[in-house]
Amino acid sequence: MQVKIARTAGFCWGVRRTVDQLMDVVEEERGPVVTLGPIIHNPQFVARTREMGVGTAERVADVGEGTTVVVRTHGAVRTELEAARGRGLEVVDGTCPYVKYPQAMAQRLSREGYHLVIVGDPDHAEVKGVVSYAAGPCTVVKAGSAIPDFKAKKVAVIAQTTCIGADFERVVGALALRHKEVRAVNTICADTDERQADARHLAAEVDAVVVVGGRNSANTRHLAEICREIQPRTWHVETEEELRPEWFDGCRVVGVSEGASTPDWVIDGVAARLASLPAPAA
Amino acid sequence: MQVKIARTAGFCWGVRRTVDQLMDVVEEERGPVVTLGPIIHNPQFVARTREMGVGTAERVADVGEGTTVVVRTHGAVRTELEAARGRGLEVVDGTCPYVKYPQAMAQRLSREGYHLVIVGDPDHAEVKGVVSYAAGPCTVVKAGSAIPDFKAKKVAVIAQTTCIGADFERVVGALALRHKEVRAVNTICADTDERQADARHLAAEVDAVVVVGGRNSANTRHLAEICREIQPRTWHVETEEELRPEWFDGCRVVGVSEGASTPDWVIDGVAARLASLPAPAA
Repeated sequence: MQVKIARTAGFCWGVRRTVDQLMDVVEEERGPVVTLGPIIHNPQFVARTREMGVGTAERVADVGEGTTVVVRTHGAVRTELEAARGRGLEVVDGTCPYVKYPQAMAQRLSREGYHLVIVGDPDHAEVKGVVSYAAGPCTVVKAGSAIPDFKAKKVAVIAQTTCIGADFERVVGALALRHKEVRAVNTICADTDERQADARHLAAEVDAVVVVGGRNSANTRHLAEICREIQPRTWHVETEEELRPEWFDGCRVVGVSEGASTPDWVIDGVAARLASLPAPAA
Repeated sequence: MQVKIARTAGFCWGVRRTVDQLMDVVEEERGPVVTLGPIIHNPQFVARTREMGVGTAERVADVGEGTTVVVRTHGAVRTELEAARGRGLEVVDGTCPYVKYPQAMAQRLSREGYHLVIVGDPDHAEVKGVVSYAAGPCTVVKAGSAIPDFKAKKVAVIAQTTCIGADFERVVGALALRHKEVRAVNTICADTDERQADARHLAAEVDAVVVVGGRNSANTRHLAEICREIQPRTWHVETEEELRPEWFDGCRVVGVSEGASTPDWVIDGVAARLASLPAPAA
């Protein structure tokens, strides 16, 4: 079977940066190293870091003295970061700069008196972090959910960095009609935009799509959603072991799209397995 | 035939205010009185003012000395207002305060460095007036037209006061996705909102709709558009003389919706004529 890999494959710039920071800490052998939540949303990569001795803690309160705390690419809740620094723990801030941006905007816009709206998943670590920087009322609107009803003259809208563009568009438009002033700052990161556009092109050109990446990765799940709308034969897997040959019955060309936190070795494994599947007779 | 009149009938607050200002000037007998363009978008009303001796001029340059210049409810182009004042002509500013608001926002937001976008009709007097207050780049986007492509980090969006809500919503949403920051100020006036909502309810309850008002009146045309989407048997007339009995074949109940600049006497004439038409046998 012919395999077509999306143009934007491999770690995005932000994930690469965070991963490099963590690897530097590991190589320096500073003593115990713990990340606040998984460093990136890829269970296969996190398993490798565990083998290197990197621990994971959900809260700073669970971290022992003398531990180096690495902040995940999705950032941390403000009070957790303060707690780590307050305890004198060594903190390596791996927050992606593209995530720092909505955090800073949340703080600035809510200080300016705007009711803050974040288009994203309220249960996602990035969104929890951004919410923690709001200095006033803050509402999270999930993709596809109803526009919330609240009283506010000035509303500011930002997005989870991995938000689907159309979801941001819908929420901003609807709020602009309901409130006197709506200030929208598009905090969707450039990599998300590019990967989603590439996935759209790819899905239109192939007989099936395999989206590779963590099931807990928001950007990977969004790629799968986008591809499925165009090519219903879309499958989301974490590794090549999940691939089922019968998914590709009659397929000549299969496309491979990958989340921003999917390691190259995982993509290579999926691509090799797909290439080994037989194409239908001409 | 049963006739149902929309709840929001008669002049809106702004039109009533402008008309009262003009009537005061006429009663004071100050000498020649001229409006810059038609005082409101209702040819029947303008014909009455003409009979009272009120003239109409397109430009201040065409106005004779000693004339009182009355600014129409839609406002005037900034330089025209300055020209009238510069010549020492008496100016009565009949601009609706709800139109002053987008004028002021256009000036303020473009001074703050925003590329201004106005959702409205570029050929409409109100929009021409608002555009004249922009201190920087300004783009007018007509309902239903493509989202224009331009480079700008900060975009401010306002609307013609009589804009259909869904058009404003669409443009704001699309721009928020294309530009880093979009600041939308909803300048659609409360009367427009209310009249459009009432028209929607009315259209759903009747067998045909007659929308009464000037063919040059943007808000009246929008009411007709809105009603036609719900009740295809929608007719836009200026006076009862245009009504055709065959339009209402088989209709038991007809709704009457009126623009913000439609005089009561015109509505009464239409309603009386409709009531005189025979309803179908039960």
